[in-house]
Amino acid sequence: MKTLTPEEKKLLLDSIRDIPDFPKPGILFKDITTLLNDAKAFNLLMDHLTERYSDANLDFVAGIESRGFIFGAALAAKLGIGFVPIRKKGKLPSTTIAEKYSLEYGVDEVEIHIDAFLNKEGARVLLIDDLIATGGTAEAAVKLINDAKAECVETCFLINLTFLGGVEKVKNLSPVYSVLEVI
Amino acid sequence: MKTLTPEEKKLLLDSIRDIPDFPKPGILFKDITTLLNDAKAFNLLMDHLTERYSDANLDFVAGIESRGFIFGAALAAKLGIGFVPIRKKGKLPSTTIAEKYSLEYGVDEVEIHIDAFLNKEGARVLLIDDLIATGGTAEAAVKLINDAKAECVETCFLINLTFLGGVEKVKNLSPVYSVLEVI
Repeated sequence: MKTLTPEEKKLLLDSIRDIPDFPKPGILFKDITTLLNDAKAFNLLMDHLTERYSDANLDFVAGIESRGFIFGAALAAKLGIGFVPIRKKGKLPSTTIAEKYSLEYGVDEVEIHIDAFLNKEGARVLLIDDLIATGGTAEAAVKLINDAKAECVETCFLINLTFLGGVEKVKNLSPVYSVLEVI
Repeated sequence: MKTLTPEEKKLLLDSIRDIPDFPKPGILFKDITTLLNDAKAFNLLMDHLTERYSDANLDFVAGIESRGFIFGAALAAKLGIGFVPIRKKGKLPSTTIAEKYSLEYGVDEVEIHIDAFLNKEGARVLLIDDLIATGGTAEAAVKLINDAKAECVETCFLINLTFLGGVEKVKNLSPVYSVLEVI
């Protein structure tokens, strides 16, 4: 499958804005809103993902709330397939399956509708999120896809903060593809 | 601009699931996740919106957190233009403008990045959300677009709960288009 050229990666990286001390002191936040509102960068990314996954026989794209909704729904629309939201606890209105994951302090939970993949056993799903940090949310999301009897064909991130090692938590459950790596 | 046939509207309406008493007793919630995971319905909707807006000379699509992200980002990707998220207070990392709106009890606030439209005065923006109920959020979102010196060319909703009259709050600020009306 095609990967981006160094020039294309630079264009995407340059379109992402670093915000120091957000949401709390010591964190350098990757602001992807400046990629989204840059038509050239957003289209380059979406065309790349569309090309990468157009022959992957996907049935669904699943995206993690809420920035994963942006990339996931855009990709599903470009591929002409369905989109499935994975949400924080209490947001999905029908019967759900939940998975807990650890935070720095305490635990949180993500949910999926039990019939999200139309009860199609073995449905081929691409999971997408904007960024992988410590990997807890992504690991829980892959488990949710499996819990709902589907197959997570690949997990795709726009940005991998490699120094946090989150991919280690996910790679035994699903292949991982990161468009950009921040070391 | 093209509108949907009655048969196409029925296909979309039938793909939306009613959930009684969510998020609280007495509310019949419109669950659009069953439209999203139905490739036929999701594509019909996105193709319709793409056709409707392809000649509208739009510079950006703006979507309201978080279901507006799904339709807005998908449409922006199909049109090949930038996407701008309008978020709940405290979620956007850089300098923002905020607008308050009334809830049944109390007030809430939405925000946009001050440079969301790349400081392009008069940028042509389509605002999109999944549903208009009482219209407070949408009214605040149109004001944010104007505050950021852009022009809200149209406000588009998948579902208009006409019995709540929300369009009245928005229509003096922006033309309104609803794909489906629930009376």
